[in-house]
Amino acid sequence: MTLPAPGGYLQALQAHTPLVHCITNFVAMNSSANILLAVGASPAMLHAREEAGEFTALADALSINIGTVSPDFADGMLATTRVACDSATPWVLDPVAVGATAYRQRLCAELMERSPALIRGNASEILCLNGMATPGRGADSTASTAEARDAAVELARRQGCLVGVSGEVDLITDGERLARVYGGHALMPRITTLGCGLSATVAAFLGVADATPDSRFAAASAAFGCFAVAGERAAAKASGPGSFTPAFLDALYQLTPDDLDHHLSLENRDGI
Amino acid sequence: MTLPAPGGYLQALQAHTPLVHCITNFVAMNSSANILLAVGASPAMLHAREEAGEFTALADALSINIGTVSPDFADGMLATTRVACDSATPWVLDPVAVGATAYRQRLCAELMERSPALIRGNASEILCLNGMATPGRGADSTASTAEARDAAVELARRQGCLVGVSGEVDLITDGERLARVYGGHALMPRITTLGCGLSATVAAFLGVADATPDSRFAAASAAFGCFAVAGERAAAKASGPGSFTPAFLDALYQLTPDDLDHHLSLENRDGI
Amino acid sequence: MTLPAPGGYLQALQAHTPLVHCITNFVAMNSSANILLAVGASPAMLHAREEAGEFTALADALSINIGTVSPDFADGMLATTRVACDSATPWVLDPVAVGATAYRQRLCAELMERSPALIRGNASEILCLNGMATPGRGADSTASTAEARDAAVELARRQGCLVGVSGEVDLITDGERLARVYGGHALMPRITTLGCGLSATVAAFLGVADATPDSRFAAASAAFGCFAVAGERAAAKASGPGSFTPAFLDALYQLTPDDLDHHLSLENRDGI
Repeated sequence: MTLPAPGGYLQALQAHTPLVHCITNFVAMNSSANILLAVGASPAMLHAREEAGEFTALADALSINIGTVSPDFADGMLATTRVACDSATPWVLDPVAVGATAYRQRLCAELMERSPALIRGNASEILCLNGMATPGRGADSTASTAEARDAAVELARRQGCLVGVSGEVDLITDGERLARVYGGHALMPRITTLGCGLSATVAAFLGVADATPDSRFAAASAAFGCFAVAGERAAAKASGPGSFTPAFLDALYQLTPDDLDHHLSLENRDGI
Repeated sequence: MTLPAPGGYLQALQAHTPLVHCITNFVAMNSSANILLAVGASPAMLHAREEAGEFTALADALSINIGTVSPDFADGMLATTRVACDSATPWVLDPVAVGATAYRQRLCAELMERSPALIRGNASEILCLNGMATPGRGADSTASTAEARDAAVELARRQGCLVGVSGEVDLITDGERLARVYGGHALMPRITTLGCGLSATVAAFLGVADATPDSRFAAASAAFGCFAVAGERAAAKASGPGSFTPAFLDALYQLTPDDLDHHLSLENRDGI
Repeated sequence: MTLPAPGGYLQALQAHTPLVHCITNFVAMNSSANILLAVGASPAMLHAREEAGEFTALADALSINIGTVSPDFADGMLATTRVACDSATPWVLDPVAVGATAYRQRLCAELMERSPALIRGNASEILCLNGMATPGRGADSTASTAEARDAAVELARRQGCLVGVSGEVDLITDGERLARVYGGHALMPRITTLGCGLSATVAAFLGVADATPDSRFAAASAAFGCFAVAGERAAAKASGPGSFTPAFLDALYQLTPDDLDHHLSLENRDGI
């Protein structure tokens, strides 16, 4: 079976400008908004329980990130994910540093009951969500994506959702198939909240995909592909993490569907 | 009647470094602070009801932006705008995405009772505040500034304040006269919270203007002019939205009163 | 007596990647995270009382900044500083605009009871903490570091901690000795939250220092030295505050221990 070409999703995103509702952490808000705008989506950041659910009903996709969560943000997250779940709006969970505290683990357990379309984390976070006690170190992973492969597949099967693992080589799986995305650059972990921005970008791509497993798998892989290509290109121009950021946004803005199709072959994915 | 030259307000701002109290959204805080510093003002971001009013009493101007508002921020906004109103400190209202939820509409209605000196929004937001049901799409406008012209004039008359509408061509009106500001660049909507930063910059300019209608109209137009000129210059150097941002801050920093006077002729404004 | 060479602390930081827990203001969060990553540390921003203390127990250092504080953040600050105090984890207090409101002064008084390892502020903030009524102007100082010299020494003695005063020439004192750090650039006050980022960087350096007075004094001075050298180098490449920021992060990332040892001679410090 041939999956849809990833470039088609970027084309659709650039044509339809999906409205992406983000409840994310304070560190990532500005950066994720600029990433979404650069790639061609329309970001909206708001979280108050008084309105968050009402707004989600208007959005094409939702991105939830627990980085600097507190009870008031958690209330907004629970309200919006319920709406997303009821209205079949695809939503992405980014379980930042879930292994670090009991509070995060309880919140993620509650959120996972609301059927995220995709969970994106680093290897430590995915291992932790799958029940392995690997707290990571703050927001950083202490494991490689290869070590998280089996956990990602298991978690995807148990949750009935996509799982994306960011690292030197990214993995995307729905429990049945697995894509590897190569690219990016070693400088990227030295810039804060790029992973959070990737989660929001995955939501934008899911917002223009069909609800079929094939379409969602291909669209999510396309989002990871955007970061891999733009990251490589930005690093080639950068002298460090400071000059990387403007170059990365420029590269995202300049990405074409052809760039993605050349970079990302979903045919050479592994069977499981 | 000849209005004061816009360059004089930039000169006054650079000489007096007005203290601008901002209660703004999480996405815009860092960007607005850097914009204010680049143009020559002194930003202060704080919102807790325990101190916000006390601080406003020290400030030269106040900027209120409802982007990521929640009840605790709304409390701070209501406290500070009451102080600003009582002490005749000019304040600017930025009604981000007011059409999107009932919560935003109620809050804006309450804030508008406290006599803002200027309301700045995109066309959809100004149409909504004037009672037209055009919710926009998230934080983005679905209407042009030309479509919002009559609503802006009406709103300015009814509220007894200035209204500024951002878009491809900006409009500023006090209900009696109307200025059009040309410039900027098509790239600017691809960078988050530039509009929020413009609202804060308008507050800074009002902070060095007299309380007369002429002076406030000219000062507000000067603020829009700064963004128009700096936006054009930054876009000429940028390869995308990432490289635009540093170039824009540099251009704001390098602006001279003469630049503004050359760019912005308030004499060729429309009568109404 | 010879103090440890400052370069050794940068080397240790780059080798050990200290985990720095930050409860800081909304304006500074992204910028401080990127500064910590550029210099070689691992930042973690979280503040909820439900987890903040639990997280601090894992961290190598803690940085507390009251810029946009509200009661919920204050709760997190009080919880984490108690844990830091109990576990002898070094922590830095950044008393932003402490002179501006009574609320800030009460909070700082409470925090100072929990034995910060270092207090970093501008001259107005340090004068205010030492009981002088110099409120500054918003977040900006109205005094020079030379005027704050005696207050810094007195405050350090009374609190039994280090005090760092940022300005054209930085001062670091433990009440017995005093280092002056030259460098930086006049452009730096035109970029928001660099001082907040310096406080977080001082925490990172204290996180790899011994708990002895000599080691802490040298490590803190090294952190100030990083900003002085990177600031000078960035300003040499920048056309304004916008291009300064990426150049500054690049310069921090490229700093070597030798750079610091050449720039910073702790031997020519003043006796007191």
